[in-house]
Amino acid sequence: MRDKQWLKARMDVLWNPRRAVMIGATNNLGKWGGIILARILSDEFQGEIIPVNPKDEYVLGRRAYKSLEDVSGPLDLAVIVTPSPTVPGILRQVAKKGIPAAIVITSGFSETGDEGVRLEEEIVGICRQAGILMVGPNTMGVFSSAASMNCLMAPVSPLRGHAACIAQSGNVGTHMLFRGKLRGLGYEKFVSSGNEGDTSFEEYLWYFGQDPEVNAVLGYMEGLDPESSFMEIAPEITRKKPVIVYKGGRTSVGAHAASSHTGAMAGEMEVIAGAMRQAGVIMAESNKQVVELARALELQPVPKGSRIGILTRGGGWGVITADACAEAGLAITRLAEDTLSRLDKILPSYWSRGNPVDMVAVLSNQAYIDCLEIVEKDPNVDAVIALGANVTAQGATTLETLRQMEIMSDQEVKEKKQQMYTDSENFVSSLRDYLDQSEKTVLTVGRWREKPDWESGLMMIQEPEEAARMMARMVEYGSYLARACGAQGR
Amino acid sequence: MRDKQWLKARMDVLWNPRRAVMIGATNNLGKWGGIILARILSDEFQGEIIPVNPKDEYVLGRRAYKSLEDVSGPLDLAVIVTPSPTVPGILRQVAKKGIPAAIVITSGFSETGDEGVRLEEEIVGICRQAGILMVGPNTMGVFSSAASMNCLMAPVSPLRGHAACIAQSGNVGTHMLFRGKLRGLGYEKFVSSGNEGDTSFEEYLWYFGQDPEVNAVLGYMEGLDPESSFMEIAPEITRKKPVIVYKGGRTSVGAHAASSHTGAMAGEMEVIAGAMRQAGVIMAESNKQVVELARALELQPVPKGSRIGILTRGGGWGVITADACAEAGLAITRLAEDTLSRLDKILPSYWSRGNPVDMVAVLSNQAYIDCLEIVEKDPNVDAVIALGANVTAQGATTLETLRQMEIMSDQEVKEKKQQMYTDSENFVSSLRDYLDQSEKTVLTVGRWREKPDWESGLMMIQEPEEAARMMARMVEYGSYLARACGAQGR
Repeated sequence: MRDKQWLKARMDVLWNPRRAVMIGATNNLGKWGGIILARILSDEFQGEIIPVNPKDEYVLGRRAYKSLEDVSGPLDLAVIVTPSPTVPGILRQVAKKGIPAAIVITSGFSETGDEGVRLEEEIVGICRQAGILMVGPNTMGVFSSAASMNCLMAPVSPLRGHAACIAQSGNVGTHMLFRGKLRGLGYEKFVSSGNEGDTSFEEYLWYFGQDPEVNAVLGYMEGLDPESSFMEIAPEITRKKPVIVYKGGRTSVGAHAASSHTGAMAGEMEVIAGAMRQAGVIMAESNKQVVELARALELQPVPKGSRIGILTRGGGWGVITADACAEAGLAITRLAEDTLSRLDKILPSYWSRGNPVDMVAVLSNQAYIDCLEIVEKDPNVDAVIALGANVTAQGATTLETLRQMEIMSDQEVKEKKQQMYTDSENFVSSLRDYLDQSEKTVLTVGRWREKPDWESGLMMIQEPEEAARMMARMVEYGSYLARACGAQGR
Repeated sequence: MRDKQWLKARMDVLWNPRRAVMIGATNNLGKWGGIILARILSDEFQGEIIPVNPKDEYVLGRRAYKSLEDVSGPLDLAVIVTPSPTVPGILRQVAKKGIPAAIVITSGFSETGDEGVRLEEEIVGICRQAGILMVGPNTMGVFSSAASMNCLMAPVSPLRGHAACIAQSGNVGTHMLFRGKLRGLGYEKFVSSGNEGDTSFEEYLWYFGQDPEVNAVLGYMEGLDPESSFMEIAPEITRKKPVIVYKGGRTSVGAHAASSHTGAMAGEMEVIAGAMRQAGVIMAESNKQVVELARALELQPVPKGSRIGILTRGGGWGVITADACAEAGLAITRLAEDTLSRLDKILPSYWSRGNPVDMVAVLSNQAYIDCLEIVEKDPNVDAVIALGANVTAQGATTLETLRQMEIMSDQEVKEKKQQMYTDSENFVSSLRDYLDQSEKTVLTVGRWREKPDWESGLMMIQEPEEAARMMARMVEYGSYLARACGAQGR
């Protein structure tokens, strides 16, 4: 890692440029220079963006310049989308202008063979000599919420929030942005790190670690340079905020595939993964899990132990979840006698009186929240997986049936549906209020169809098996924090 | 298992009753006797359903009888929803009437303790003596496509098709029906087997095995009686059609939870799971996977080997899939030189020339299908995982942007969107045509948002890791078939 002060100064500018220039901007919306500029303009970039195009006087309605030399005044950032052979020359102009940061979208460097490797060495040399911080080359772009800068190839306008993401594959990374939108995870900063010719994964990680606006760092990592200082940096960050990484190239075939598309070498991945866990990095098992873990850790505290209570509305689902917890290394706790007595007052006499707590035929929403609270407060419980936390108008189908059979009038059906809708709104709001103040980790599993869950400040995990695996990662992180920071955790 | 001829005769009636009676039918739509009757009536049951209710002359518009004795003429099926203490008396009437089959929805039997165990023994005794085939007790119901009989507690009208499902948990089972609707898997028959007091998992399995309308059997199993003949029956069926089981109670805590909700004992599950695999049963890893495997095997042939080709539109996704395949025990094959040469003609010169086949920046739909075909035809490839088979109008966001910026007119945007829609319709249809005739297994991974995928006769698996795990189960099944039936497989 390079000098931290230097890096911070450059990164501050990269993520909040006041005046940026795009070399290769074009009115042709079939080209990246058109597509990305359109996205920057439409997502209301807070700074000024100046197109450079040798032919057109105006690009997408903005005054354009024939070359970078023609642009007067100070510039913070150069976005480069021109073909690879032109990039060294352009970066020399960037250096001459004293622009501190560059994003090289252009591909055709070390990922394409020997000539590409040479060309990448050349551009890195130019940047290093001039003190330019370069993102890429071969990057799918950058997003900054603070600057409202959507400099991305993918058609996504990310939900804004407090996650930061570093992706060694643009496609995989931008998918984390898409998923975030579905699951309620908002982003403060995003970088597709591309070939990492200049700026590396651990440099972004270090910066995001210092950023008070960032509350979690997500990563997709394929290669890690053996010279990297990742393992020294990570433990500093993971004490303060979760770092969740999905590691591609875990197997030899995966590593081989990785080396051919970003030019990165995968290295001894067993060793690296073990070291990363030691450093408190949460090792996710899928792209999906990265995003959902980040959202879960945003909504819920870190578990203080591995003793799980399970609440379910159906016996079979309790079995499935108990199996999945046991397989993930979690303990299905024995509930305290007092907990059972309190549940006895809500549940029918024949309930199973054990963990999982099967609510049998009790359907009331209030009873659900009451049972959840009783289980959560049990001194033997560290965390809860709450199944069937559905917020759907389950009865809507039945109402339609009754309307068709002319047993209920249109008006009656309309009123009943309205009532169901109000009931589920109330349930969402009570459940959220409860979860917001709960001191222990609660993961909710279920579905709803009415609206995206993030609007309600909740997250429904779709599969109980997935909730168990997520909980296991969260428990590991909790135990890391207890070791690293003392018993209080975060 | 009981006598096969007897069982077949009774089951034939159960799944195709001409005249059925519901004891406990009611106009109260808050009770199961009202809810289930409404569903039977609205889903256009092909037979006659007669309500029995001691008070009302009409129930949901049908003439009702005060007691079963008052109903004249032959009856095929009795559906019982009255409280558990009344069930023995009612079943004695069923016996007296000579009704061959009964569905006991009522709960409160062996799942609730000693008194329940005694009551269940009593009703089973009555059925056994009278030769009544009983479903349940404590069942969430039955669905039969042929009879258009939707006798289910859950608010689902299943998609019709050729799967059959046996579920030892009603909630888990009906979820397979919901999921089927989302993923395009239609059902011919469904049974929530409840406590299996009389009719057992393997008896349903045997019958579904003989049924020419059933092309796959799905199961959720918690307990297996050590006396069961499941292991003798299964290999007969698995040679003819896939049997896909999700086993709950794999761990001791899961088994403990299972024993408390259906009264079933989980037994030595490690041993059972091994024996089931030996018998050619596909052991799924989640409820979701059961349904998606069944649909995949409906759409695609069984793989003849484990050598996988991967097609991707993004390098990182190729890495992720290669890792997931290797971890699932699949081989990432080396592509033939001829395959590479043929791909060279479509892909840019810097493509990675290996497996996974990364299409880099080639976006054309036709190129996608061409590349897929080239990989699939490779003699070193047994099956393909095709990523990024998206059928979404990805560019719609960009068009909206351009409209907002007034760079494109409303009319132009409308026309472009229409064009995109037509393009994706054409892609769906070409892809489906290709997959329909392909001789090797192809699993497609991607998303689309326009319409449910089943309308197009395709299935998009949502996560590449999931596709790899599914493929591994399909390869195992293919290798079982090759062993059991000779090299040709099915």
